[in-house]
Amino acid sequence: MSNPVLVNTLRGELIENRHRGAIAVCDPTGRLVHAWGDVDALVYPRSSIKALQALPLVESGAADHFQLSGAELALACSSHGGEPEHTVAVHRWLARLELDEDALECGPHAPSNDKAAAALILNHVTPGRIHNNCSGKHTGMLATARFLEEETHGYIEREHPAQQRWMNALGEMADLDMHRLPWSYDGCGIPVIAMPLKAIATAFARLAVPDDLPAARGSAIDRITGSIAANPFMVAGSGRLCTEIMELTGRRVIVKTGAAGVYTAALMDKNLGVALKIDDGTSEAAQVAILAVLTKLDSMHAAELESLAPRCRMPITNTRGVLTGYRESAGL
Amino acid sequence: MSNPVLVNTLRGELIENRHRGAIAVCDPTGRLVHAWGDVDALVYPRSSIKALQALPLVESGAADHFQLSGAELALACSSHGGEPEHTVAVHRWLARLELDEDALECGPHAPSNDKAAAALILNHVTPGRIHNNCSGKHTGMLATARFLEEETHGYIEREHPAQQRWMNALGEMADLDMHRLPWSYDGCGIPVIAMPLKAIATAFARLAVPDDLPAARGSAIDRITGSIAANPFMVAGSGRLCTEIMELTGRRVIVKTGAAGVYTAALMDKNLGVALKIDDGTSEAAQVAILAVLTKLDSMHAAELESLAPRCRMPITNTRGVLTGYRESAGL
Repeated sequence: MSNPVLVNTLRGELIENRHRGAIAVCDPTGRLVHAWGDVDALVYPRSSIKALQALPLVESGAADHFQLSGAELALACSSHGGEPEHTVAVHRWLARLELDEDALECGPHAPSNDKAAAALILNHVTPGRIHNNCSGKHTGMLATARFLEEETHGYIEREHPAQQRWMNALGEMADLDMHRLPWSYDGCGIPVIAMPLKAIATAFARLAVPDDLPAARGSAIDRITGSIAANPFMVAGSGRLCTEIMELTGRRVIVKTGAAGVYTAALMDKNLGVALKIDDGTSEAAQVAILAVLTKLDSMHAAELESLAPRCRMPITNTRGVLTGYRESAGL
Repeated sequence: MSNPVLVNTLRGELIENRHRGAIAVCDPTGRLVHAWGDVDALVYPRSSIKALQALPLVESGAADHFQLSGAELALACSSHGGEPEHTVAVHRWLARLELDEDALECGPHAPSNDKAAAALILNHVTPGRIHNNCSGKHTGMLATARFLEEETHGYIEREHPAQQRWMNALGEMADLDMHRLPWSYDGCGIPVIAMPLKAIATAFARLAVPDDLPAARGSAIDRITGSIAANPFMVAGSGRLCTEIMELTGRRVIVKTGAAGVYTAALMDKNLGVALKIDDGTSEAAQVAILAVLTKLDSMHAAELESLAPRCRMPITNTRGVLTGYRESAGL
C-alpha cells in the first residue's frame, strides 16, 4: 500500500518529481473528517507541535511570572529564521531569566534565513545556539524550569521535568500515552515522539476549539494562539509560508511547519485540526500540500488565496530566470 | 502503479522518510539486465548525460584543435562545485577561445561548495556564470562552435548547431529520435529532453563498451571516459560522491549525478550501463541508490565499499552532533 501523490513538480509538460503523503483532518472529538493516505501511520511531528509544547510555559505560571510578551510566547512556538529580530528577542528573554546563550542546549546551526546567514559570514561570526531555529522553544523550557526552581542543566533530557511536562500535555491533547510510543532525538536535541497522524490532527482541532477542555488549559491555549496570530513574524520570519499565511488570516488559521515534510494547522473558524506528512520529507511539497488542504476546506478567502497564488502553484525558474515549470497540488 | 521504495531514512527505530524510484541496468544491445520500477517512464536526465553531450567536442576536432587537456575534457562533463580549481580552469580555457565569462549563457548561481560560496560572500563577489556548475559543459559547447566558426551568441538555443550536435549523438547512443521526445529547459538554460530510463542506461552501456560503435566514436568515448577517470575532482569536487567513487575505482566505474535525483553509471568491467531516478527528486537518496546498485552488481571491491561505508549507509546527526538515524538502501 502506498500513499497517494499529493504534489507534483512539472518541468515543461512532464511531471519531473512526485511527492506522496498522508493528510488527516479531525474535529475536536477525534473524528476523522477527511483523510488522504494512511493516517494511522506513526510520524514524527518534529517542530510542527511547538504550540502544544509551549502549554506548560503558560500553565505553570512561568509566563505570568516573567511577564512574557506575545512576541516571546510566539518565539517559544517558533522555528525562526535566525534573523536579528529573533535572536535579539531570545537574548533579552534569556537575560531576564539571568541566563546567557550557553544555557541553551540546542546545537548551533547557520540561520535558515539566507541574509542572516550571509551577515554572520561577513562579520566572521560562527553560528551559535541562539541561531538554532528552536532557540525560542528552548528558552521557553528554560523559563519554566527557572520559575519552578529546577536544575536547568540537562533540561533537554527525556527524564527532565521540562520534557515530561510537554509530553504529558501533548498526550492529553492527543489522547495518547506518550511514554508508550517510539521516540528518538529531534534536530535540536530534545526527544521527538512518533504519533499517529490523526492524533496530531485531533490535538490541533482542540487547539482550534478548546471549549471542552478544562478552563485553565482553555485559557492557556487562547493566550498561545492569540500570541502566535499577533506575531506571525516571530513564529518563522522573512519569506516564510507560516508567517505569510498568518499575516493574511489573522487568528482564523494557525499553521506550523515541521522538518521532513510535516505541516499542521488549527482552523479556528472551521473547528478542525490538520496534520500532514510528505513521505519523502520534502518541505516545499508540504507547503503546497497545506495550502491545497486549506483551499479544499474553504479556510482561505479568495483574496488571501490570490495573494498566495505563487505559493499554491510555485513557479520554478532556472538560473537564467526562465520559467521551467511549477510545483503544484496533484488534486485533493 | 507505484515504483518501489529504494531508500529509507531512519530516525531512531522508525522510517521517517521513504524514497521511491526506478533503476534500469542495460547491456550495449539495449537488453534490460536488471530493472526496479517503471524503466519505460520518461525522465529528464538533467546533468547525468554530460559525458554524452561532450561527444561533439571531440568528434568535431575541436578538442584536438584547442589541444584540450584531460582536465578540460573532464570539466566539459562536470557538475562542478564552483571551487577555485574549477573556475580558474574554465577562465583559462575561455581565454584560449578568445572569449570571456560574458560569452557563457548559463545563469549565475552560488557555488554548490559551501567553502567556495562563503569565500565569495567574504570577498563581496556576486556569483557569476562561471560559478554555474555547468560552466565547463558550456565552455565545451562554445569551443566546438568557435572551432566550426559558428555564431556563438545564442548557442544555448535548441536550434543552434551546438545543441543539435549533442542531441544527434545522444539519439544515436540511445537509439532514440531526440526530436520527437518531450523537452523543456534545464537549470543552466540549454534544452533538456525526456528519455525512457532504459534508453539512458543503454547509452551508458555503450559508453562502457564502445566496441560495436564506429571507430571515430569509439575513440572519442575512450578519450572522454579516460579524461573523466583521470580527473575525478574536475567532474564534481570536494566532498562529492562522484569524485569519491571515481577516485577509488579509477576507470572501472564512471558515475555522474544529475539534478532531481538522477544518477548514471558506465561499468567498464561489467559491460553495463545504469540509470536511476528517485521519484521525489532527492539527490541524497539517489546517492544511496547508486551505491546500492554498484554493490548489487558487484562493481565495487570490498575495500572500496568499506571506505564508502558512510555513503552507503549515511549517518544523520542533529545539531548537537548526536546520531539520530541513517539514510540507507531499502534493499535491491
